Amino acid sequence: MSDEIFHQLHGFYLEDITQGMQALTARTITDADVTLFAGISGDTNPLHLNEAFAAKTRFKTRIVHGMLTTSLWSTLVGTRLPGPGCAYLRQETTFTAPVHAGETVTASVTVTEVIPEKQRVHLACACTVAGRTVAVGNAVVWVPKRKR
Amino acid sequence: MSDEIFHQLHGFYLEDITQGMQALTARTITDADVTLFAGISGDTNPLHLNEAFAAKTRFKTRIVHGMLTTSLWSTLVGTRLPGPGCAYLRQETTFTAPVHAGETVTASVTVTEVIPEKQRVHLACACTVAGRTVAVGNAVVWVPKRKR
Amino acid sequence: MSDEIFHQLHGFYLEDITQGMQALTARTITDADVTLFAGISGDTNPLHLNEAFAAKTRFKTRIVHGMLTTSLWSTLVGTRLPGPGCAYLRQETTFTAPVHAGETVTASVTVTEVIPEKQRVHLACACTVAGRTVAVGNAVVWVPKRKR
Amino acid sequence: MSDEIFHQLHGFYLEDITQGMQALTARTITDADVTLFAGISGDTNPLHLNEAFAAKTRFKTRIVHGMLTTSLWSTLVGTRLPGPGCAYLRQETTFTAPVHAGETVTASVTVTEVIPEKQRVHLACACTVAGRTVAVGNAVVWVPKRKR
Repeated sequence: MSDEIFHQLHGFYLEDITQGMQALTARTITDADVTLFAGISGDTNPLHLNEAFAAKTRFKTRIVHGMLTTSLWSTLVGTRLPGPGCAYLRQETTFTAPVHAGETVTASVTVTEVIPEKQRVHLACACTVAGRTVAVGNAVVWVPKRKR
Repeated sequence: MSDEIFHQLHGFYLEDITQGMQALTARTITDADVTLFAGISGDTNPLHLNEAFAAKTRFKTRIVHGMLTTSLWSTLVGTRLPGPGCAYLRQETTFTAPVHAGETVTASVTVTEVIPEKQRVHLACACTVAGRTVAVGNAVVWVPKRKR
Repeated sequence: MSDEIFHQLHGFYLEDITQGMQALTARTITDADVTLFAGISGDTNPLHLNEAFAAKTRFKTRIVHGMLTTSLWSTLVGTRLPGPGCAYLRQETTFTAPVHAGETVTASVTVTEVIPEKQRVHLACACTVAGRTVAVGNAVVWVPKRKR
Repeated sequence: MSDEIFHQLHGFYLEDITQGMQALTARTITDADVTLFAGISGDTNPLHLNEAFAAKTRFKTRIVHGMLTTSLWSTLVGTRLPGPGCAYLRQETTFTAPVHAGETVTASVTVTEVIPEKQRVHLACACTVAGRTVAVGNAVVWVPKRKR
């Protein structure tokens, strides 16, 4: 791969990132996504896969795996802000409300702090469904410098 | 679903959980898992999918999505300890080393604290590859009581 | 993988299995499961995928692939009873009633015979939907001994 | 759906089937197929998903779920012989050798008996990999008559 193509594929460099920058994505989570996540994770919890079981829990109906919902933050960090080239160091997540198959999740990450000497960027993370917050968190990523 | 079948499918109740309990699973993460995770999350970061791009980064070769690796904790929490019936409240994750497709990840969760009045259980989480730690974290889950 | 972790992941050994032991699981079969099974098997029979075709058959509406329903026995044999380490030798299946997407299938396997000299275990298999039997069968598995 | 299209989609009718008729298909089973089957069945047996675990068993390396291999018979019965319109009544399967991801399985079904008064057809089933038999079995299907 030429340097030119590498830089075209590369995301933001540390010098490009400032507090308040934001990226956003949204996706409808389908039954197919839930089944596929069960396959790659092995998480076959009946709360996600069994309507009759879920009906007898406090959730009343099947819910989506929390880590499937918040994988949208990985998507934003890895493809948009900072994007390709960064390294994920840390993720804190609080799940605040259930998500159901068929619902559309909007995910966002917002830069809260840039620490140049450590080449680290902190991001506030949120997932919402129809305006209702379903997960919040914080991410820390290492970001390469343009000038090495 | 009868109460009897529900209880057979259900995981541990709060009364059953004590500090030090542990569950463990292990799995080889294949290229197929990486592709499927890219598909359901939308995280198409070339660091995970493009060998030529990854070769020019500090990682030198493609690495597995961190959230795919740590989805094994979701598996343990949701199917083994506490298992079906609990609710995932919080997950903190620190990624400490890269994982490559073809490597076998061993994941564990260990109960560090039981808070009966809040019905909460804290778990220490770890992922290793051939004895090398690749991710550590903490989880908080809500667990139903047997006697309501 | 250390011997200790191997044994934690391993299922029952021959010495642990007695007649009457039972394992049970249950799952809602979704349209996504039907589509994915069509994809990996290539079984694109319109009876499973085409509502207009199915309406003109004696089934009146699309039905789930029989082998998708009975794959739950593979799940029980491979993960629960006997669980990891055993080898599937034989499966006999009779499909007794159709299953429709959205229905929750309860599957069970029950040990009917242990043949120590051949290291074989026989299991009776059943799948039900809301108490109605949809498939029955018998499985034969080879099970490792703890003491070799 | 018009009767004309229905009949174009429909498989063989009972009157069309004679002893010795055969259908054949073949497919390379990939790691992706194994992960997807794990997701839809819930069968996360480490023998199929964990190379390090499998290395310590008599199989030495990961093997494909037996029911994934033999799902090719469902494909043949449901799409080719007898094809759309028939109803799967019974399947007997003996697994004779392991299949590994990346191997190409050839599956065949051959009519061994036609029982007009019961509208039943018996088929001998086989799966081979490079000439080596990996599974054999028998299927019984109900087949509609052209003239009702």
